[in-house]
Amino acid sequence: MKSIDKLAQAQRRTGSILSIGLEPSPDYLPKAFPHTLSGYEEFLRLIIDATQDIAPVYKVNIAFFESLEWEGIELLYQLREHIPDDSFLIIDAKRGDIGSTAKHYAKSLYESLAADSVTLNPLMGKDSADPFLEYTDRLNYFLCLTSNPGADDFLLKNDLFLSIAENVNIWSGSHENCGLVTGATRPDYLQRISEVAPALPFLIPGVGAQGGSISEVLKATNLEERKADHLLHVTRGILPARNETGDVLELIRKKTEDLNSQVKTEREGASS
Amino acid sequence: MKSIDKLAQAQRRTGSILSIGLEPSPDYLPKAFPHTLSGYEEFLRLIIDATQDIAPVYKVNIAFFESLEWEGIELLYQLREHIPDDSFLIIDAKRGDIGSTAKHYAKSLYESLAADSVTLNPLMGKDSADPFLEYTDRLNYFLCLTSNPGADDFLLKNDLFLSIAENVNIWSGSHENCGLVTGATRPDYLQRISEVAPALPFLIPGVGAQGGSISEVLKATNLEERKADHLLHVTRGILPARNETGDVLELIRKKTEDLNSQVKTEREGASS
Repeated sequence: MKSIDKLAQAQRRTGSILSIGLEPSPDYLPKAFPHTLSGYEEFLRLIIDATQDIAPVYKVNIAFFESLEWEGIELLYQLREHIPDDSFLIIDAKRGDIGSTAKHYAKSLYESLAADSVTLNPLMGKDSADPFLEYTDRLNYFLCLTSNPGADDFLLKNDLFLSIAENVNIWSGSHENCGLVTGATRPDYLQRISEVAPALPFLIPGVGAQGGSISEVLKATNLEERKADHLLHVTRGILPARNETGDVLELIRKKTEDLNSQVKTEREGASS
Repeated sequence: MKSIDKLAQAQRRTGSILSIGLEPSPDYLPKAFPHTLSGYEEFLRLIIDATQDIAPVYKVNIAFFESLEWEGIELLYQLREHIPDDSFLIIDAKRGDIGSTAKHYAKSLYESLAADSVTLNPLMGKDSADPFLEYTDRLNYFLCLTSNPGADDFLLKNDLFLSIAENVNIWSGSHENCGLVTGATRPDYLQRISEVAPALPFLIPGVGAQGGSISEVLKATNLEERKADHLLHVTRGILPARNETGDVLELIRKKTEDLNSQVKTEREGASS
């Protein structure tokens, strides 16, 4: 099955457009878990157990695993085994390099780690993306407009973000194997991106912790022409605060359900 | 010692501006070495043994290690131990992500792997670079203009490459902790980059295998204002062809010395 179809199916199955972050970070680890590799593994598996029927997507941020040295990459390979077959896996790697190097990144992410999707950096242009685009059954989310202040330095100059959206829209073509990473803190620009790339699904980080408003984001995006829905990414937003008490699994589940309800309500409001 | 000074010292010690690629690739491995992790390790150590007194820099391309799964990353950690203290290590990772993620990449590359220098992707702007820039004693080479055809898609539009060079020049400031990756196949643009960033050292891939001319590159760059010299990067160019016979160490050493001589001759020609 093509990734775009798998994503749409997972979104229907769960009635959700949330992407849940799996990150072995000391900042997020609840007190009950030890700061060890097995402590992280246990915690990340618990997040999966708590959300697999109410969230369609897990996004793994590879930087957090790299910072645990080679044993962290081994942990990532172990964690991969625990992600359910009908969940959609994005590996957030933001890779981008000349083709002869990119083919090694693609092999690692799409074959060894069997990701359904990865995030990529388009700066070096089409031939740097080709080794990923050749996987016509996967979904390549390219950085388009990010939610950090530094987006002003290059992405917003001379409408570079729009040029990226236009190019990626062409690269995707009939394969339907591309999407865009578009920050939630800039809903005014989401509409413009939507216009030049009406068929591409967005991966939208920055809701919650980074200050993006779900309501603003949902208003700015037109979903009708897309085969799979956009994704709202959240990591800290479904995790208990360090001093929060109660069953961790139940807390995560409750926060995820609350976010799903909020999305549903705001979307119904936006379309009425 | 600051990386920029360590680089200058290594260049003086070896009388060379070559950066030597260390890549565990099946395409480069001489017949005598088995296609195993220990075969790769033995071969990469041999490259170091053959060149450490005649080349100042080793550049490790992390993609090739990632494609060997987590055991490949373990190999990278082992290889790190074999790089001499007075050799300069660049880890070619082209990382770029929001600050909270970038700090994990920086920790991995600058602390766990103790790189003297890394390559980075500037697309997301200043705050995405900050976790690396905060290492004021290292050297951050930012992608500026690459040697692949896809550079036309974004980097050469609206002079984005010049805007990157100008920004990185400011980021570096008095810390002298930035450089630029500038492809050898476009010497006409190297001069323009040199003008807006006169103090930044360049890392110049694409000489040899990718078609760049040493002579053209050296003509286009003005070295007088830089504390450390530019680097010409080469991987395949110093390795024996698959069907070449003879002692592998001697072949590598001979090809490296030939390149050093060629650089010296062409530079003397250019300055006379």
